[in-house]
Amino acid sequence: MTFNLKGMAEDLYIGIKDLPIVSPHGHCDPKWFATDAPFPNPAELLVVPDHYVFRMLFSQGVSLTELGVGKEGAKTDPRSVFRTFAAHWDLFLGTPTRVWMSYVLRETLGISQELSPQSADAIYDQISEKLARPEFRPRALFDKFDIEVLATTDSALDDLAYHTDIRQSGWGGRVVPTFRPDGVLDGADPEFLRNLKTLEALTNCDLGHFDGYLNALRQRRAFFVELGCTATDHGIEQVHTEWLDDPDAMYQRLRRKEGTPQDARRFYGHMLIEMAQMSVGDGLTMQIHAGSKRNTNHVVMREFGRDKGADIPIAMDWVNGFDALLNRVGNNPDLRVILFTLDEGTYARELAPMAGHWPCLRIGPPWWFHDSPAGIARYFDQVVETAGYCNLAGFNDDTRAFLSIPARHDLWRRGVALHLADQVSRGYFGKGDAEKTARLLTTDLARQVYGLQS
Amino acid sequence: MTFNLKGMAEDLYIGIKDLPIVSPHGHCDPKWFATDAPFPNPAELLVVPDHYVFRMLFSQGVSLTELGVGKEGAKTDPRSVFRTFAAHWDLFLGTPTRVWMSYVLRETLGISQELSPQSADAIYDQISEKLARPEFRPRALFDKFDIEVLATTDSALDDLAYHTDIRQSGWGGRVVPTFRPDGVLDGADPEFLRNLKTLEALTNCDLGHFDGYLNALRQRRAFFVELGCTATDHGIEQVHTEWLDDPDAMYQRLRRKEGTPQDARRFYGHMLIEMAQMSVGDGLTMQIHAGSKRNTNHVVMREFGRDKGADIPIAMDWVNGFDALLNRVGNNPDLRVILFTLDEGTYARELAPMAGHWPCLRIGPPWWFHDSPAGIARYFDQVVETAGYCNLAGFNDDTRAFLSIPARHDLWRRGVALHLADQVSRGYFGKGDAEKTARLLTTDLARQVYGLQS
Amino acid sequence: MTFNLKGMAEDLYIGIKDLPIVSPHGHCDPKWFATDAPFPNPAELLVVPDHYVFRMLFSQGVSLTELGVGKEGAKTDPRSVFRTFAAHWDLFLGTPTRVWMSYVLRETLGISQELSPQSADAIYDQISEKLARPEFRPRALFDKFDIEVLATTDSALDDLAYHTDIRQSGWGGRVVPTFRPDGVLDGADPEFLRNLKTLEALTNCDLGHFDGYLNALRQRRAFFVELGCTATDHGIEQVHTEWLDDPDAMYQRLRRKEGTPQDARRFYGHMLIEMAQMSVGDGLTMQIHAGSKRNTNHVVMREFGRDKGADIPIAMDWVNGFDALLNRVGNNPDLRVILFTLDEGTYARELAPMAGHWPCLRIGPPWWFHDSPAGIARYFDQVVETAGYCNLAGFNDDTRAFLSIPARHDLWRRGVALHLADQVSRGYFGKGDAEKTARLLTTDLARQVYGLQS
Repeated sequence: MTFNLKGMAEDLYIGIKDLPIVSPHGHCDPKWFATDAPFPNPAELLVVPDHYVFRMLFSQGVSLTELGVGKEGAKTDPRSVFRTFAAHWDLFLGTPTRVWMSYVLRETLGISQELSPQSADAIYDQISEKLARPEFRPRALFDKFDIEVLATTDSALDDLAYHTDIRQSGWGGRVVPTFRPDGVLDGADPEFLRNLKTLEALTNCDLGHFDGYLNALRQRRAFFVELGCTATDHGIEQVHTEWLDDPDAMYQRLRRKEGTPQDARRFYGHMLIEMAQMSVGDGLTMQIHAGSKRNTNHVVMREFGRDKGADIPIAMDWVNGFDALLNRVGNNPDLRVILFTLDEGTYARELAPMAGHWPCLRIGPPWWFHDSPAGIARYFDQVVETAGYCNLAGFNDDTRAFLSIPARHDLWRRGVALHLADQVSRGYFGKGDAEKTARLLTTDLARQVYGLQS
Repeated sequence: MTFNLKGMAEDLYIGIKDLPIVSPHGHCDPKWFATDAPFPNPAELLVVPDHYVFRMLFSQGVSLTELGVGKEGAKTDPRSVFRTFAAHWDLFLGTPTRVWMSYVLRETLGISQELSPQSADAIYDQISEKLARPEFRPRALFDKFDIEVLATTDSALDDLAYHTDIRQSGWGGRVVPTFRPDGVLDGADPEFLRNLKTLEALTNCDLGHFDGYLNALRQRRAFFVELGCTATDHGIEQVHTEWLDDPDAMYQRLRRKEGTPQDARRFYGHMLIEMAQMSVGDGLTMQIHAGSKRNTNHVVMREFGRDKGADIPIAMDWVNGFDALLNRVGNNPDLRVILFTLDEGTYARELAPMAGHWPCLRIGPPWWFHDSPAGIARYFDQVVETAGYCNLAGFNDDTRAFLSIPARHDLWRRGVALHLADQVSRGYFGKGDAEKTARLLTTDLARQVYGLQS
Repeated sequence: MTFNLKGMAEDLYIGIKDLPIVSPHGHCDPKWFATDAPFPNPAELLVVPDHYVFRMLFSQGVSLTELGVGKEGAKTDPRSVFRTFAAHWDLFLGTPTRVWMSYVLRETLGISQELSPQSADAIYDQISEKLARPEFRPRALFDKFDIEVLATTDSALDDLAYHTDIRQSGWGGRVVPTFRPDGVLDGADPEFLRNLKTLEALTNCDLGHFDGYLNALRQRRAFFVELGCTATDHGIEQVHTEWLDDPDAMYQRLRRKEGTPQDARRFYGHMLIEMAQMSVGDGLTMQIHAGSKRNTNHVVMREFGRDKGADIPIAMDWVNGFDALLNRVGNNPDLRVILFTLDEGTYARELAPMAGHWPCLRIGPPWWFHDSPAGIARYFDQVVETAGYCNLAGFNDDTRAFLSIPARHDLWRRGVALHLADQVSRGYFGKGDAEKTARLLTTDLARQVYGLQS
């Protein structure tokens, strides 16, 4: 079950469908590729870690525990989890999850039956049998998927041991870390002080002063770069940047636990600019994922923790929120800052005009809920006319679901082909330009913008 | 004049066009069905009560009085009102009003001539002649329209006498009330104190204390339920909910007329949660219609009153505004809360992600200005991928214009068929799933979500 | 390179493509038509003044100086500027700039080669050669373009000498001024006090009192009207209107430089209403262009000045912002106020419902970044169903790039034809109504709304 292409769209799709996968941003676990252990079972592979899947069932009254989520959920029989999922398969009609999952079952796992309550057990058994085979281990799949490079997302405090193991293993797969420093930048994070201590221990910098703190961050960035890192990542609710005259004073207040939430927010806004300045120095591409209000369901947060489907987008103000950062470093053409939004109203109103002016800016691909056929169509419709194609950042799959990577890139490639075929049919440009642009959107832009040229 | 369907869309439409009409939310007058009196004349039937019609003429300089609206307007000759309308028929090109009205004239009233300044008098006469016939009385039309159930919207203080009459009349039509308590919840309503007195008189509860007030509301809900009510309704400008520690204190301030507008807003925000909690108890589906700034034209309000075409949508923040209610009752899978928005920017950004997570939530169909071909297309485009179909609430016509009910349901059914045919043509799902989903969107979801299964 | 039309769309386009150009709003320099001097060279004609062009190159790291912009840029060899532009021609794939520029080169300048780095010099030479010919002088082009009327935008303090010259020249072209008073209304403008002095000198009014100030403004409006002016124009960041009880007090504070930014904002909000009231008197159509945050790049502002591609749209609130003005003058059917937005989220949510009610309001065509094929499609999709066609204002090219005027009107006409063909194919209305509406949107509405009937 995926979407059909005809005529010019099909031609364009054929020209890009077999290009290698460039995956510059996502949430795969590097341990998979370091240890190359088999994936456990169909439920833990396809249902339990996928918030797109369990949020939909939860919205229709299925408990997360029944779906294998959380501590209690871990006791649920995986076959029962898979049956519950199959019993509600119809809920996904019209969603990208159904497109992705169908692709995974058919193309990646080679299951020919349609998923249904009746076929659940048979399909569960077939998948289980396959997962035990060597060709379904993580590294074999990585190679089979033709992944040119895969970036993970890692805490600034991570020792990157799995990344080191991968590099030392002799396996040829390119897996690189991404520097995600929010835990040591955000004074409102309950772990902030403990994180600073860890940072101090890791770097031997004196974190008693703001300068030492900056040095520690620089040192961690350099460590990530050594292991192949080319980018950083930030996750923010509402974008705010400002340049503080005396960041040390704020830093000290936060270290003494005397800072207000407003102080924490202002300090974080300052640190985003410091991070951008460090990027000018070390060349790391900066990613900003903004506009998600996290963990809005308090019961789910308390019982099951973060990333359980209760993060909801909010309205964004990029223009004012990003002003201070841009006016400090935005004219530098060597800097790359990629903006990801969940508020599609900002595509044409803010992001496209901003990216069509500021040398440092690129617009990230449709993110999260908008990484879908209609979401991709709206994205192209709303950003290209003002930003052109060259101010985009290609595609990221941004997934924790390793098996879905080919499915997600395939969906994007189909969306690209449809968009470009439409442009050609309207006379906007010819087939040659469409073919060049298709390649750009599929692999070349991602390589360029993330500095991942091989 | 309505919109064309071809191929798969036509097939899907044919499969649903003759399903009965389920009308779970609207503003028809129960008196029509209680008394079964003939409708007065074409102008009072088609022009005077329809704000879609007179707002467009008003926007082009026609006075409301000329259109029969208001006290002075009541003196305007109905034939002259109808002529004025016909003279401006071209203004409606491209609007759903023209689609609905054309359907009403052609299909419901059997008028074969096109409306124009020249045909106005002849058409007026034909309609007048028909309205005098028994088959054009309210009950006969109700039966002819094949209405399975029709919900009206009624003040919490209404004695529901017409509803009682309908039930006792022996006529088989199912007309049910909807509990609309805003007048007794909103401390900013100029009638608030008078309404509380009426509430006290109706229920014999002691409204001197907050508990008595809650009891009175419970009693009224129970009374509505006895007469077939399955839902409540709220109309709000900007959504705000919060759980007050001491609601009685606020209640007392409002009763003494000492509350500020902010107090009234907070109290209303608390009462929405109380209403949701009562819904958990009595099973009434809760409807929230939010985001309309009412009566923005002060002259029109002063001279002609409410609902005269001067209500304008504003930007919404559902995520923060609804947070307190959801975190108190939102995980209850037996509760049904339907959200209606006029800010389409919140479809994909807020409502679809929220309804795709919270067990209690459903997204209402395109409302008011968006109940239109393009509005329906945007709705499906923006909600389905994240919320699926099962988190929607089917269709409501939400109209005061009884004759337009079949026209509005027909427009929705055509929109459903077009959307689903498009999904099939893109390979999203097959014809079988499309047919099932078409039925779901036409009748089944509305029945389920409003608890109107017969 | 422009977009294709087929079948009904092509038929409708053929019916309007050769209608005269009505250009009721734009930024052409009246000097061109007063002096009729040849345009200097291809770079100064096509690249240097076009912020759409240089902002895109700037966003990809090209310096404005290389592009001939600014004082230093003036020293850059125009041929080198043109080569730089041609070298980056591919950046414009998918943008309206490419559509317009291709049209200008092919249709207006008669260049048959495709622009590319290789053809840059040859094309530069061909254009240079043509610019020297009499048929490429401003007046000849004006006639060749079949411009019925062209409005410029002029400071309230302008002596309109070029306009006077045009009228006295005996040339038949109709070029009219537009009254833009922001510099004498906005107390936050650094030139405000100096502008008041100039206003005093020009009018001999006593600007020591608010009444004298109003009289001076009335006098300037009357002067503009004498020279053919039919409209005013305002450019605002966020819309705010309010009626001050004592505007003189605020006026005095601003004159003494004692006003806060908030005072300036409130005073401007009052003056918008005064301007609307004067429009009721003198019949000038009022234009409000709102929602652009100007000069967001401080370095570019300091080094290159205003209008250099760094203006970015922000979210708008028309409903509350415009409330005071509408409630004072909005019911007057003789007043015309045209609203232009850069926040497309307000099309269906605010502007269409407002224009579909208030007699004075009309919705301006897609503006700036949204004056593009997809922007035009979104505009029709989102405004027509609620506002109809008669509450729109036709088209404006709003350009400083004289040569692009036919290209921009052609793009609009193609967009109109596509939209209407789609309406016909969906059965919304027949070909006759589509043809009438096409003409309305191409010329008739602009003439009516701006009072430019010949």
